[in-house]
Parts: sequence; structure tokens; C-alpha cells
Amino acid sequence: MNLILFHPDDLVNESRVRLTGRRLKHVLEVHRANHGDKFAVGLLGGKIGTGTVTLIDSTVLEMDVRLDRDPPAALALTVILALPRPKVLRRVLYSLSVLGAKRIILLNAARVEKSYWQSPFLAPEAVMHQLVLGLEQSCDTVLPEVILKPLFKPFVEDELPEIMRGTLALAAHPGGGATVPHHVSGPVTLAVGPEGGYVPYEIEKLVSRGFIVVSLGERVLNVETAVPALISRIF
Amino acid sequence: MNLILFHPDDLVNESRVRLTGRRLKHVLEVHRANHGDKFAVGLLGGKIGTGTVTLIDSTVLEMDVRLDRDPPAALALTVILALPRPKVLRRVLYSLSVLGAKRIILLNAARVEKSYWQSPFLAPEAVMHQLVLGLEQSCDTVLPEVILKPLFKPFVEDELPEIMRGTLALAAHPGGGATVPHHVSGPVTLAVGPEGGYVPYEIEKLVSRGFIVVSLGERVLNVETAVPALISRIF
Repeated sequence: MNLILFHPDDLVNESRVRLTGRRLKHVLEVHRANHGDKFAVGLLGGKIGTGTVTLIDSTVLEMDVRLDRDPPAALALTVILALPRPKVLRRVLYSLSVLGAKRIILLNAARVEKSYWQSPFLAPEAVMHQLVLGLEQSCDTVLPEVILKPLFKPFVEDELPEIMRGTLALAAHPGGGATVPHHVSGPVTLAVGPEGGYVPYEIEKLVSRGFIVVSLGERVLNVETAVPALISRIF
Repeated sequence: MNLILFHPDDLVNESRVRLTGRRLKHVLEVHRANHGDKFAVGLLGGKIGTGTVTLIDSTVLEMDVRLDRDPPAALALTVILALPRPKVLRRVLYSLSVLGAKRIILLNAARVEKSYWQSPFLAPEAVMHQLVLGLEQSCDTVLPEVILKPLFKPFVEDELPEIMRGTLALAAHPGGGATVPHHVSGPVTLAVGPEGGYVPYEIEKLVSRGFIVVSLGERVLNVETAVPALISRIF
């Protein structure tokens, strides 16, 4: 937790927050905070700045907050990720939040197991929890939007053209196509397939929509490694 | 497991391997393999190619193997990683192996908890297991070398100059210095600090040796996300 993120509801007046639960516990146990200590803070969806502890005990943390800076810039990126298995999903959501992705579409694909769509890690509060942890890590305040698309074909045919309009559209696929470009300018739509890759029909569909098939070389990367590797190279 | 990795001891003659245990189980249960099926195979430390199943039952898998290609190229990279906490260590070793790093130095730092050095995940067989899983993922055969350096100062003063000679030496440190360069040519030495970063003394030591302090921007990345993000951008 490099930044203590608070919600508008945590404000007791314009410049004072009152926190309990996980954030209090962290400040007490990890930072062993005392009256007067300063921490990086941020308002969910708003600015970041500094909080000064005015009260802390085992039940409550109060801080005077001064929010004077914008959070880090968002990436001009839409990620379209074949729904990974639940354990991987959690880590990838966290990592996407850390990296500054703000639009994440979880899409079905032939090699996505149906049971993944029933995972408790897809519940809105579970998704939100990973995203918040990512913001606290990266000192950001802006929650990514996560959209579930359990049907591949209608999504690609009907919705994708509008999403990818005006962007560089890249489909990461092991062993195929060009090398992932470095440091592109302008917005990007990045499709990442499931472990095992897209099936040929899916690649053809994406290519027919204008996606360029790219890879990171001969190696087949796992999704948790591929996602930061792709995003950091592209931006 | 995108590649079935075997050991010279698994060869029953020049072109036939006999496998049991984890690899047999995978081929039986995940691939439901039958006589005549073909799989990507590789000899640990050697070439990669194709294996054709000649015998499979609940106790043994035999394949005729033809090894006709070199594994993917190694990265011209030495990673010097402040020893992360055990759970993170496992995932980062896996990810470094997947990415093709071949020399990994685990170094102490002020913000590395002493207990991490006692972790069972640092035992040679535990480290080896993660590296092998990484090779099986990325279709590589060449094990990274992992070196433990539990003392920061003597390592940096006495050993680092030789290690970094002729390389671009980069120390990744949140919020500091230049942006991590894209797509450099030539060999790289990359130092990655602990969660919480290096302390000033450590950064000064690295800079005095010729390291350039770089960051991935304003965001503070966790180690699991930072490692693939750094490596993929640099190469």
C-alpha cells in the first residue's frame, strides 16, 4: 500500500478523512503510525496528495488531507483479455490496475473453460478488490472499468469495430506475425488470448476486423508474464 | 507445459526417452495421449524437437524423439534482484525463466527481511522446479543460473564491476531518474530493488559503480509486474 485510497464517504469534512478496517490495520501494523505522521493519500476517482495523522487508535484513523496533484496518466489502452483461470485472473487484474490500464474487457474464447465464468473472483466486489489493491500499489486513484463479454462472435462482430476505431489494434498470439512494436504513439487496442492461444477461427475473425497479429518472439509466455511485457513494451 | 523437457538420464537410447511422474501424468491427464501422438520435446540444456509416443500407460511414457532445432535465444541479460518475499520469489523465478533470462543474482538489500533468506523456496530443488516450469512454458531447454548473494556491500564492491563490464547497467527505482529505455542493443545488467525500493545508500553505491537509475514512470510497480515490464521493454 504505497497510497492510502479513500472514498468520498470517508470524508468527515472537506479536508478530513476517517478510516477503519483494512486501511487502519495497515497503517497501524505496517507503518506503526503516530500522530503527525504523513502518508500519500488519494481520493478514489480524484486527486492525490498528503494525509497527516490527527488521530489513531485501535478503532479509527483520522487524517487531515491535502489533495494537490493529479494521479498518474492513464494508458490510452483497451485490453481485451480471454478470461483466464480464476487464480490468474486475480493477478492479472491487479497487474493491469498497477500498469494504468483503464478499460479491461474479459472475453470468451474457445479455449476458455466454461467454469471460469462461474468463478467467485468475477463477482463485482472481488474484481473491485483487486483493482483497488493495484491502485494502492501504483499510487493511482482511477478505477479501471471491467466489462464481461461471455460471447465471442457477437462481441467481435458488433461491438469491437466501435471500440477499436482510431486505435492500433494488436492481437498477441504466440509464434505468429510481427514482433510486438515498441513505444507506439496513439491509442491501442490489445487482444490477449487464453493459455493455449486463440483457435484459428478467432484469429481470422480478429484479423478480418483489422487486428495485426503480433508476438513477443519464439517463447510462449504465460498470461501473467505476457500482460506486463506487452503493455510496457507498447507504451 | 508447452514442451516436455527431459534429462539425459531419461534417454534409454539415442532417440528414445522414458518418462514417469509429473510429465507422464500431464501427458496422460491433460493431453490424454495415445500411441502415435506427437509433442514438442526438449533435452535439458540441449536441442528441441518432436517426440512421438511409442508407449503410454499408467506407469510409463515412451517417446521416439527427434531433436532438430536450437531452443530460443537467451537474453543478453544479468538480473540482480533484491530477494523478494517467498511467494513473490517463486513467481518471479518462473517469469524470469519464461522470459529467457539466464543469469539471476538474488541479492540482499536493507529492505529485504532477513527471514526471506531462510525460505524453503530458496532451496536448490525448489528454485530448480520453478525454472523448469518456466522452460516448459516457454519451450526453452537452458536453465538459468541462480546465484545467492546475502551481502550487499561486498558484492557491489568486489564482484559487480566484473559482472557489469561491457553492459548497459540499469537500476530500476520507482520515481527516479530517466525512463527505462526501449529496445537497447547489447548486453544489459538490470538491478531491481525490493518492494519499498532501495535505500539511498544502495542507490548511491550502484550509481558509483556506473549504474543508471531508471523508472517506468510515476507508478510504483510491484516486483512481479515490474520484472516482465522492464525486460520486455529493454529487449
